[in-house]
Amino acid sequence: MRILILGGDGYLGWPTAMRFSALGHDVHVVDNGLRRRMHAEAGTDSLTPIADLAGRIAAWREVTGRTIGVTEGDLTSWPVVEEVVSTVRPDAVVHYGEMPSAPYSMIDREHAVFTQTNNVVNTLNILWAMRDITPDAHLVKLGTMGEYGTPNIDIEEGYIQIDHNGRSDTLPFPKLPGSMYHLSKVHDSHNVHFACRIWGLRATDLNQGVVYGIETDETKLDDRLLTRFDYDEVFGTALNRFCLQAVIGHPLTVYGAGGQTRGYLNIVDTLQCVELATLNPAEAGEFRVFNQFTEQFSVGQLAALVQQAGKEHGLDVVVEHTDNPRVEMEEHYYNPTHTKLLDLGLKPRLLSDSLIEHMFDVMTTYKDRVLPERIDPRTRWKPPAPSAQPAG
Amino acid sequence: MRILILGGDGYLGWPTAMRFSALGHDVHVVDNGLRRRMHAEAGTDSLTPIADLAGRIAAWREVTGRTIGVTEGDLTSWPVVEEVVSTVRPDAVVHYGEMPSAPYSMIDREHAVFTQTNNVVNTLNILWAMRDITPDAHLVKLGTMGEYGTPNIDIEEGYIQIDHNGRSDTLPFPKLPGSMYHLSKVHDSHNVHFACRIWGLRATDLNQGVVYGIETDETKLDDRLLTRFDYDEVFGTALNRFCLQAVIGHPLTVYGAGGQTRGYLNIVDTLQCVELATLNPAEAGEFRVFNQFTEQFSVGQLAALVQQAGKEHGLDVVVEHTDNPRVEMEEHYYNPTHTKLLDLGLKPRLLSDSLIEHMFDVMTTYKDRVLPERIDPRTRWKPPAPSAQPAG
Repeated sequence: MRILILGGDGYLGWPTAMRFSALGHDVHVVDNGLRRRMHAEAGTDSLTPIADLAGRIAAWREVTGRTIGVTEGDLTSWPVVEEVVSTVRPDAVVHYGEMPSAPYSMIDREHAVFTQTNNVVNTLNILWAMRDITPDAHLVKLGTMGEYGTPNIDIEEGYIQIDHNGRSDTLPFPKLPGSMYHLSKVHDSHNVHFACRIWGLRATDLNQGVVYGIETDETKLDDRLLTRFDYDEVFGTALNRFCLQAVIGHPLTVYGAGGQTRGYLNIVDTLQCVELATLNPAEAGEFRVFNQFTEQFSVGQLAALVQQAGKEHGLDVVVEHTDNPRVEMEEHYYNPTHTKLLDLGLKPRLLSDSLIEHMFDVMTTYKDRVLPERIDPRTRWKPPAPSAQPAG
Repeated sequence: MRILILGGDGYLGWPTAMRFSALGHDVHVVDNGLRRRMHAEAGTDSLTPIADLAGRIAAWREVTGRTIGVTEGDLTSWPVVEEVVSTVRPDAVVHYGEMPSAPYSMIDREHAVFTQTNNVVNTLNILWAMRDITPDAHLVKLGTMGEYGTPNIDIEEGYIQIDHNGRSDTLPFPKLPGSMYHLSKVHDSHNVHFACRIWGLRATDLNQGVVYGIETDETKLDDRLLTRFDYDEVFGTALNRFCLQAVIGHPLTVYGAGGQTRGYLNIVDTLQCVELATLNPAEAGEFRVFNQFTEQFSVGQLAALVQQAGKEHGLDVVVEHTDNPRVEMEEHYYNPTHTKLLDLGLKPRLLSDSLIEHMFDVMTTYKDRVLPERIDPRTRWKPPAPSAQPAG
């Protein structure tokens, strides 16, 4: 299969590229190095020392004998998208190529506008390229469980049957996204759905939970194949950050009451899910939605798990409740369905103490690279209350 | 009340500005002349010969003694938005300032990207300006009934109570928009809802039907106060275009079977609705949604009404079914609720033969200005079928 991986230099994109290549597929990655540039500008960095994209690809070839094609370019540029889709003629397009951070999108107006235009425009470009160049290809698009928010009913996979005034229809599940970034993914979902309904494209939207983990089978083959690991307040995510905090002796920063519950999955299950979706494509005209996570935890539960694992590992871990910088419900109902990937054959690798302890070991190797001052949240969802503002 | 009208040079924006000014409010309009430029570039024009914005405002002052403030600028530019909101300090922002055309958005990739970025970015700019400069102001945002599409259940006003697996929640009504333009409005609705939920802004989303009519009380005062009237395939809309076709002896172009049913309202009712929404603001934190139309018709019904009115007016009107350039259901269930504006006091002016005949009279005055070759649809929702494409 010819597989085009957009955002192929990222935390998930790079391991996905290696996995498909290892399985014998023709893999081509596109990336504009945005994440690396943003870290450089912010003075932050991946915990793991990662090779540059060309170096990774050379190392992969050296280690496995396999070739991964590469385009360094920006997907918001139509000539880049047109050229790569025309040349590669993919059977599947795996689309990780978006600005992924909720806090980043909430920093200020410019960051919100950048996040939404970047994500919406590059997805529109891809849809048009597929429509006109490879109309039979399958788009595997990474979305997020955060598109749904926390409604007071069970969350279904993309659609819900609504019985109303004696009639019935199955319609897109209503969305209550919690940041400008999550909104960009909702916009994408509507645009991709339209392309399937109107042009007959085939697409799978993977509404992914929070990913944790630091290694896959392929990253372990050689240090030059490591994937990035972000722990800073902008790009780090809950469980990964807690493990790192435990390792460096920083209190675990639980935002608010800690009842915020989300779906989680191991990075190796992300690869499994994307592989299952890609090898079992949607029908022509179908906009298929999978909820991609394996377990759900509250932030408080995660902190307790990490604290317990730390104890067994000889680490003294303190849990600290900080003011919540976000606007979100801290106690709420949460019960999303996630059976469609299991039906396709997903075998989850569930979170266990042993996995957390293994993450501790890997992180310890790189702990001297940590910038502890970049961990605590600084981005707030709301401007300061009027009383805190100067008069006038 | 200080009222800022975005898109205040448009078909609805200009009459709205005059109406609020006539009622004694402080009115300031913003427009970047985009529609005028697009007509100039396409070689099309308004049926009515309209004065330029400065000329309109000068004429309004001369005729009524009232002053309307004006900013010529692009809302996608933050300095423009920041300056106008800081200076005017509006109590209400009436937001017509978007690219409005479904066919325009479907011409090609560039037009789709332009429509979505233009509309999403200018609305984000306005939300940010309101958050930081006038957090208590009320946003009255023009949406469209086309956001909902044609689901097989009754369409409610913005939200629907969903009972599911023994639990219940009231959630945003699911959307199935029918063009890249309609999608941009769905994106806006999600963004504005977020700003209300997270920042406590107050907003009313007016999901408007198709507007028809050529005059309001104010446009009739002086020829220099006329509003624009578009009949071309890009900016014209169903009923207005049928009336014009009847006047110039062009067959009425019904797309496909003609069962496509939509909500419609008279331009004078648009002014009434916007006035009611503005004078009865949403609560702080509330994202209020009104379905803004007064009657529903299928395209076939409208054609028959125009044909009948034409007969009584001495016009021989032929109805022609053409290939549908759009992808849409041509026979479908359609029953949207629209009671909230009636509850606020809306007194609809319903479509009647006499109104259609009056439109015939006004159009006849300007019929020499018509470019008949710009009426028939050229923009298609779908690329040509593969069999029609050159091999290779």
